Amino acid sequence: MPETPSAARRSERARAAILTATADLIRELPYAKLSIESIASRAGVGKQTIYRWWPSKGAVVLDAMLERYSSPEGLVLPDTGDIRADLRLLLRGAVAELTDPDSEAFLRAMYIEIQQDPEIGRYYRERLLLPQRAALAARLAAGVEAGQVRADLDTEVALDLLLGPIQSRWSLGLDGLTEAYADAVLDAALAHLAP
Amino acid sequence: MPETPSAARRSERARAAILTATADLIRELPYAKLSIESIASRAGVGKQTIYRWWPSKGAVVLDAMLERYSSPEGLVLPDTGDIRADLRLLLRGAVAELTDPDSEAFLRAMYIEIQQDPEIGRYYRERLLLPQRAALAARLAAGVEAGQVRADLDTEVALDLLLGPIQSRWSLGLDGLTEAYADAVLDAALAHLAP
Repeated sequence: MPETPSAARRSERARAAILTATADLIRELPYAKLSIESIASRAGVGKQTIYRWWPSKGAVVLDAMLERYSSPEGLVLPDTGDIRADLRLLLRGAVAELTDPDSEAFLRAMYIEIQQDPEIGRYYRERLLLPQRAALAARLAAGVEAGQVRADLDTEVALDLLLGPIQSRWSLGLDGLTEAYADAVLDAALAHLAP
Repeated sequence: MPETPSAARRSERARAAILTATADLIRELPYAKLSIESIASRAGVGKQTIYRWWPSKGAVVLDAMLERYSSPEGLVLPDTGDIRADLRLLLRGAVAELTDPDSEAFLRAMYIEIQQDPEIGRYYRERLLLPQRAALAARLAAGVEAGQVRADLDTEVALDLLLGPIQSRWSLGLDGLTEAYADAVLDAALAHLAP
């Protein structure tokens, strides 16, 4: 039976309340303490309302993250014509995102889920990670066209060389994640990327 | 009151049984399902026996991992005089370790704990990660001495350039973690490391 217009509005309000409650709680609670129950209680809905739409806590968290960080137009990196400048902004932005308390809480939750829930991992890669990597790959391809990046580039290796140092330093809890560090990683990676 | 010799033997036996049970269970159960209770039951001890020595599940898991993977003499990387050959072995070894079901289960558990328990993260870095990084840093320093590595190396950036791509590809669940990939990462990193 299709929802009536007012039931659809109620559904939409409940869904928004659940995602907002999740985004709030993910900063307030250690991830192990975040539960469907705590989200339901904060959102003012029943647990069954959440389970009607999401199979697990990780799935709600991922949707709350998509709601906040994905853009409907998809992701395109700026192309100023200067590959070094564009990549510098990108890597500094990655450091800023990983050290911002809001996005950091979401990302740590995703790292936990990826290690233990293959479904969430797959969904996270499809919806967030691979589009981000594709946008960077497109920027590198434009750099190849412009003669600023080597033509025989292995794109996967290039992406990991740029992003891997920052991601692994962060995920292992090593300190020193600064703009200066991002710039140094870029210089090092460019030794390989340059024609 | 000091333990009598036979009490000390019983303690040692219980401790060994707990660590063995943990190493078995970490492969059998999703990490969220691994509990102090399940470890105690498998080891044939009471939960209180575990809590007497360890504050949390993560602490037991880390000790079980140390028992299996750390060596009392500390870690030294081979130095054949050929930095490329030595690093190739190291990076291929990292891929093998991350894709071996035994060590992968431990490492995924550690990645989960690092994201949510700062104490375990600190202990993991002190006891396993930083000694591994120090061993690689020492090998790079020998490479500088031998004129095979640039003298103005930023060691932290160099370590992350070598290890970060493999670690982040693995921790994000991206595929393609092969020896050929490890070799390609090494070639790319050497563009920066070489004098």
